[in-house]
Amino acid sequence: MFTDATSEEINSAMKEAWLAFHQYRKLPLKSRADFMRAIGDELKNNEDELVQSAMKETNLPEARLKGELARTIFQLNQYGEAAERGEWLEVRIDTAVPDKNPPKLDIRKMLVPLGPVVVFGASNFPFAYSTAGGDTACAFAAGCPVIVKAHPAHAETSEKVAGAILKAADKCNMPKGIFAHLHGAGIEVGKALVMHEYTKAVGFTGSLAGGKQLFDWGNQRKVPIPVFSEMGSINPVFLLPEKLKQSSEEIAKAYAGSITLGVGQFCTNPGLIIGIENDDLQKFISELGNEIEKIAPAKMLHPGIAKAFEEKRNTALHQNNVTTVSVSGILKKENEGTPTIATATGEVFLSNPVLHQEVFGPYSLVIACKDMKEMVGVAQHLEGQLTSTLMATEKDILENDKLIEAVKNICGRFILNGVPTGVEVCLSMQHGGPFPATTDSRFTSVGADGIKRFARPMAFQNWPNSLLPDELKNENLLGIWRTVNNELTKEVIH
Amino acid sequence: MFTDATSEEINSAMKEAWLAFHQYRKLPLKSRADFMRAIGDELKNNEDELVQSAMKETNLPEARLKGELARTIFQLNQYGEAAERGEWLEVRIDTAVPDKNPPKLDIRKMLVPLGPVVVFGASNFPFAYSTAGGDTACAFAAGCPVIVKAHPAHAETSEKVAGAILKAADKCNMPKGIFAHLHGAGIEVGKALVMHEYTKAVGFTGSLAGGKQLFDWGNQRKVPIPVFSEMGSINPVFLLPEKLKQSSEEIAKAYAGSITLGVGQFCTNPGLIIGIENDDLQKFISELGNEIEKIAPAKMLHPGIAKAFEEKRNTALHQNNVTTVSVSGILKKENEGTPTIATATGEVFLSNPVLHQEVFGPYSLVIACKDMKEMVGVAQHLEGQLTSTLMATEKDILENDKLIEAVKNICGRFILNGVPTGVEVCLSMQHGGPFPATTDSRFTSVGADGIKRFARPMAFQNWPNSLLPDELKNENLLGIWRTVNNELTKEVIH
Repeated sequence: MFTDATSEEINSAMKEAWLAFHQYRKLPLKSRADFMRAIGDELKNNEDELVQSAMKETNLPEARLKGELARTIFQLNQYGEAAERGEWLEVRIDTAVPDKNPPKLDIRKMLVPLGPVVVFGASNFPFAYSTAGGDTACAFAAGCPVIVKAHPAHAETSEKVAGAILKAADKCNMPKGIFAHLHGAGIEVGKALVMHEYTKAVGFTGSLAGGKQLFDWGNQRKVPIPVFSEMGSINPVFLLPEKLKQSSEEIAKAYAGSITLGVGQFCTNPGLIIGIENDDLQKFISELGNEIEKIAPAKMLHPGIAKAFEEKRNTALHQNNVTTVSVSGILKKENEGTPTIATATGEVFLSNPVLHQEVFGPYSLVIACKDMKEMVGVAQHLEGQLTSTLMATEKDILENDKLIEAVKNICGRFILNGVPTGVEVCLSMQHGGPFPATTDSRFTSVGADGIKRFARPMAFQNWPNSLLPDELKNENLLGIWRTVNNELTKEVIH
Repeated sequence: MFTDATSEEINSAMKEAWLAFHQYRKLPLKSRADFMRAIGDELKNNEDELVQSAMKETNLPEARLKGELARTIFQLNQYGEAAERGEWLEVRIDTAVPDKNPPKLDIRKMLVPLGPVVVFGASNFPFAYSTAGGDTACAFAAGCPVIVKAHPAHAETSEKVAGAILKAADKCNMPKGIFAHLHGAGIEVGKALVMHEYTKAVGFTGSLAGGKQLFDWGNQRKVPIPVFSEMGSINPVFLLPEKLKQSSEEIAKAYAGSITLGVGQFCTNPGLIIGIENDDLQKFISELGNEIEKIAPAKMLHPGIAKAFEEKRNTALHQNNVTTVSVSGILKKENEGTPTIATATGEVFLSNPVLHQEVFGPYSLVIACKDMKEMVGVAQHLEGQLTSTLMATEKDILENDKLIEAVKNICGRFILNGVPTGVEVCLSMQHGGPFPATTDSRFTSVGADGIKRFARPMAFQNWPNSLLPDELKNENLLGIWRTVNNELTKEVIH
């Protein structure tokens, strides 16, 4: 339905983005925020059309999509406000000390935008992590033009969202080239965008294979660029003994819900639950199995994802010494995903890397370790994760320091007594983690700190006040927090 | 004299560093700073021996080495203080909102150390960017153990500095494995260190070939790691017309000094000076030539560097349409570098990539552009740089916006009316820039912000106050700045 962008179209979009960059970065922070708010307004104005389009393309239900669109607008507003507040600029000013030997010169540093950012939309979030999603919002907030490679699974929705962005750009008199939207069914368009000389950074949310490929291309360029790929994970949950004894039924209920939420199509879906073999764990497994049996299969995002789920789940279930605990008792229809729980011992898990792979969908594997030592071993051998969760009492935590320290090494967000699904959009959120959860654990893709993925520090040495950017001028007209001679302050410099 | 580390030694150092990491990261920030101050004290106590050793190995004069050692101690103290002050932790706290639907959970985020950091010392800074230099100080401040691969050109000095670090570690009861020092004359030891599973980040200062190789290895690992390589640059200086007319003699004097400072062996050495062809530029070239003729050749760091300078300089001088303006009038002795100035037109420069390469030593190329448009073209086609400098009046700047914007795209530090040599150690310093100046323009290797290269955010969700790290507790016992519900504050949370 949509044709792939030609190399001329790609080149032209990138050239215009490069030119727009020089104008956009000079606009006041407020103009960036106004533009982002205007995008939010356009999205809101077109809510019905957008939600209908996304329902058709993704099989996601109306309420979820309305919620996701609201979240997308919230992100645009929140990151825009953060951009205006200016703390993310990390302004550092050291004033001159002329009588030092040698004289200390005036130096003032702030974050400046990297340049045009290429964003790849996620299949599982047609709004919040796609065309006008988190990466786009962060890039606009940082001062970067954005070129979106539409996800082919929701290309029409993407096209409509792009229309809203372009309309907002027009209303706000943004420079031509501030935003472009390109289609590409295969890998060629994406590759050409990542390799283009005017591309200065990439944001991606999706599979390990896809995200790693973009990362490799980014590094293989003549001039390497940062590629932030968020590639999901299996989000291990550690059940500690005292807590499990106290609350196995509650935990089973909560996790049956978390595992099957949104047909398991969240990057924070709990795909691995680790306990210690005893009656409490067996009781929990049986309770979780009973819950899962009652949950109906539901339509997945698109046929490709439903097929991949079926295959990966079956591969996992057919591994040696993996036992199926429970599948939904309700027969699945076409393109639906069937809630499934399996179990294996710690030893089996540790020796079989297939079981460490993400099964994207409503599936979780319960690991029964023979003792705490083996549970620590599992934590030590797990790959990097977006989240890890402890179900634990205070006593459980105080008595198992080695486990806690091992879990800290592998995750970006460490949850106590909760479920990993549900990613709050706030400054304290860390949505990122050691590889393979993301390609750079030092950044986040949710929350306004995600802006910093697309900016770099620049220092101005010995410039007169009148020629400095407003953010760095003595007067602090923007009223932002700045570190002046090692002290955080909003004060004017005299 | 020193033997290459065996793979057993490498493995053992990395294993011990990994174990030490789990203890070191839990120590209070003050203990890290105390340890760093203790290293400074040990260095000070051994000043004479260290300086004598470095003089022998690097040919650098005593006064310079004393200054560099003082700077190294200053860095350790300053980054330690910054670590204690805690702003770099980027603490973000969003408190719970239980009556929100769904309830908003308590989330608290801070930077945590990445793990063991491998540091490669620089040949041109045996103290400040080597064994106990900036990268090591940043890693210790972040909470990371350090494994240094000694630079073979000053292996004995490195060994002595390592001794001082180990003595300080012992005095401060640091965990065994907090620091290791390994030798390696070839690339094997370095490669094994970068590829080791327990290595979580790399810091390097040196050549483009070396730094890019480490970066590639870091990315090719099964689990890629961040490699921050600072690889130097040619630090272009743009002479604007009005300023040049007013002050050509002053500029010539200042630049003759900057080009030959430390025998040109600084990564901020100005290797390219760009003006517009007219009488003022010819006058400047002639004045610069006269100054350079008077400056005596001096011993370079080691025979390899002297030989490379000779070769690269001669290659540059023998390019088509490159004219030698001036060489020192004093005959050079063995291993000395001869101050040299050459010139070419903008057209010649733009068409010959050889002229864009760094000639590490006392050499600079003056480019005569036919007009401002060509000067802008040169700025637009230059590779990434640590610094760029404008010699300009306010009028020059206001009239040449296109040039200013083009220069902004290529540099980390933008200097007005000064010289790029001389890198102040302060928070506002940016010592980093777009590739190939460094492998990631989003970080700096000078100033306490360099700590952030070796740390990543971790969020704690729904943890009780008593079990949180001190930095995140309600009481704010450390008295650090934190962003609580989007407001920067030092207040206690009630």
